Amino acid sequence: MKIVLDPSPLQRKELLQRPAIDATALQATVRKVLMDVKENGDEALQRYTQQFDGVIPAIVAVQEEEIREAIALLPAGLKQAIQQAASNIRVFHEKQVQAPEIVETMPGVQCWRRSIGIEKVGLYIPGGTAPLFSTILMLGIPAAIAGCKEIILCSPPNKEGKLHPAIVFAAYLVGITKMYKVGGVQAIAAMAYGTPSIPQVYKIFGPGNQYVTCAKQLIQQEGIAIDMPAGPSEVCVLADESANAVFVAADLLSQAEHGADSQVLLVSTSAGVVEQVQSALDAQLALLPRKEIAALALENSKAIIVKDMEEAIALVNEYAAEHLIISCKEEDAIAGKIVNAGSIFLGNYSPESVGDYASGTNHTLPTNGFAKAYSGVSVDSFVKKITYQKLSKEGLQQIGKTVELMAAAEGLDAHKNAVSIRLAAIERNEL
Amino acid sequence: MKIVLDPSPLQRKELLQRPAIDATALQATVRKVLMDVKENGDEALQRYTQQFDGVIPAIVAVQEEEIREAIALLPAGLKQAIQQAASNIRVFHEKQVQAPEIVETMPGVQCWRRSIGIEKVGLYIPGGTAPLFSTILMLGIPAAIAGCKEIILCSPPNKEGKLHPAIVFAAYLVGITKMYKVGGVQAIAAMAYGTPSIPQVYKIFGPGNQYVTCAKQLIQQEGIAIDMPAGPSEVCVLADESANAVFVAADLLSQAEHGADSQVLLVSTSAGVVEQVQSALDAQLALLPRKEIAALALENSKAIIVKDMEEAIALVNEYAAEHLIISCKEEDAIAGKIVNAGSIFLGNYSPESVGDYASGTNHTLPTNGFAKAYSGVSVDSFVKKITYQKLSKEGLQQIGKTVELMAAAEGLDAHKNAVSIRLAAIERNEL
Repeated sequence: MKIVLDPSPLQRKELLQRPAIDATALQATVRKVLMDVKENGDEALQRYTQQFDGVIPAIVAVQEEEIREAIALLPAGLKQAIQQAASNIRVFHEKQVQAPEIVETMPGVQCWRRSIGIEKVGLYIPGGTAPLFSTILMLGIPAAIAGCKEIILCSPPNKEGKLHPAIVFAAYLVGITKMYKVGGVQAIAAMAYGTPSIPQVYKIFGPGNQYVTCAKQLIQQEGIAIDMPAGPSEVCVLADESANAVFVAADLLSQAEHGADSQVLLVSTSAGVVEQVQSALDAQLALLPRKEIAALALENSKAIIVKDMEEAIALVNEYAAEHLIISCKEEDAIAGKIVNAGSIFLGNYSPESVGDYASGTNHTLPTNGFAKAYSGVSVDSFVKKITYQKLSKEGLQQIGKTVELMAAAEGLDAHKNAVSIRLAAIERNEL
Repeated sequence: MKIVLDPSPLQRKELLQRPAIDATALQATVRKVLMDVKENGDEALQRYTQQFDGVIPAIVAVQEEEIREAIALLPAGLKQAIQQAASNIRVFHEKQVQAPEIVETMPGVQCWRRSIGIEKVGLYIPGGTAPLFSTILMLGIPAAIAGCKEIILCSPPNKEGKLHPAIVFAAYLVGITKMYKVGGVQAIAAMAYGTPSIPQVYKIFGPGNQYVTCAKQLIQQEGIAIDMPAGPSEVCVLADESANAVFVAADLLSQAEHGADSQVLLVSTSAGVVEQVQSALDAQLALLPRKEIAALALENSKAIIVKDMEEAIALVNEYAAEHLIISCKEEDAIAGKIVNAGSIFLGNYSPESVGDYASGTNHTLPTNGFAKAYSGVSVDSFVKKITYQKLSKEGLQQIGKTVELMAAAEGLDAHKNAVSIRLAAIERNEL
């Protein structure tokens, strides 16, 4: 880690900057695949799956037999762990459901709002060395709670042409209606446009590499909604002199192991703690299986020492971390002053990895400073809220003049007329 | 209106299609202005304001004197109307505030979620013949309720280098902190990047022409959030044989007068009602000041006659209208079956214009079929929700095994270690 003491405002700005991600270079390539799938459907999906995944599966939903097989293959302990995590995630997300409430804004004018699950949603789960089954829980559970009718999943097949049993089990557990063995840009295209085998959806969720991210950006411009813009994962630890350096180091490393581009930031009021964390990092790093990756991420990471907690909080708010761990004596008071973060972890017993898997909060969170304007995934992400209004005769009489005056002032006479014509009918006793 | 009787599924798909909006042709022009403002700041803003608005105002926030002047200029009746509308909008939107609730997902594992106003937001209000002060209420009131600290407004100056008094009054009324006389792409650029005079914001709201819409799309790709994708305004009226044809015609016209590209759709189970609406349209159209615009919009609009209400509802759900008016006997039961719409107007006394101005619901709504995945603007649009978790010693002991197993199965040992290292410390009584 690069240690910076008491940075100037200008230095600070530089220190908090994320690496620039320029997707324009990929756009031409990605656009080509999108168009190809749009035009050639399943045939294009098979072609790309052969090219990138080395297998040619039929483009059909995973069948019951394969699901049964996966469930049988998975160790009982892991199944129980997934079920426990699912239960916690369900309990937390169920509290996010909002019941409609009728508001009488003035006599006879009733307004309300109802949340309705987005009918068709698509979840993308990347392949690679580790099967990200935890993300299926994080997306599938709120989707089911929201009442989405069709929840489909796309994930690339492994060399045997299969999905990892943990992926199949998690998807089955949360009630995903159909799983398809398709990955990459071609999977995003299939869900955005639909193919004869894969249904079109209205919103696409899930992580992916820069090609997948670019594909999501492009289809968003065509009106398909996406969960949120994406960037490399990141953690910020805010530590005062009371922090446990061994724990802080473990938390920083759990972020660093994600990838060489992971963002790791330590902000502290104590030079002593930073020094101890540095030693603990060295000791723990040596023991990690993914130490090469974590070491690369740490090389680009920074520890910033500031003169007091006020400055530390300002810095943390300016950074707007995806994950913020507060390792301080007065953790609750400090948390109350944080305005920009994805998810916050309080105290010695709340490592980030608890939230990544099982505390109940969602792990799909805004990276790259997007926490200044974006929230993490929740049940909200899977519903749209329709508003309703119903006026009584008296209600329209009460509000009519207001609408007529405003419409006329905006130069919209037909708007005014839609009210006037009704008020006149009421006066003539025709209504 | 083009009348279509009992369309086939293929015809139906065509009928419901919106006009394709291809912004790619504008992108180069818009990108040039964005870059220019990013590089040259206020100087570029003055240059474009001179070019497009014919005046060279200083790029400074509107001063107190000009605000006092505008308030004095505005007729008392209109001021009262705006205040009444603001009151209704405030009452409805205040109910959208969500208080945090701590959820214990398992013993010792506490999770919660807190809504925090996006610190800096920018509202864009287009110029043109009619001053859209109603949109200021629709955006400024939820922003204030959300607790946004800095709420700025950009709107192009008129030929006298001023903002319309109704715009200034509405902005003052809802507590907008700063108003700037800048319009078009240059205004979006100023709010996205900041200039020496105009502060940068994290999210940009508001309507605009296709250049403004394109600018919002482009800056969204750079990480600035926007309210939602935009398309031409639209209304769908669902009418059975009980509908009042005169009212239906008035409602269709209030949409048609917005612009030649406005989308107007009538879906009915009654050929008789459609015929009556057609006559009423002819009669009402002739009296409208904006009849040329409305006539153009009507030329492209359709009345679809279907055989029963079930088909009508399916059609309406597939269309996903921005505004849906239900003029039917069983309006409430039918509303319960609508899953895709921006805002719904029920019964004879609820014309769309009531919601456009004053019922209390928001008029910034998803167009172009986006209601399948997007909601209209609400207090939600101005907050982000941070999640929190705090575990007790016992909580971590309860959940530890689950996290360790899942992290190991995903191949993320440092994630596992962040838990194991704490559990070991607890066992050694060090914590």
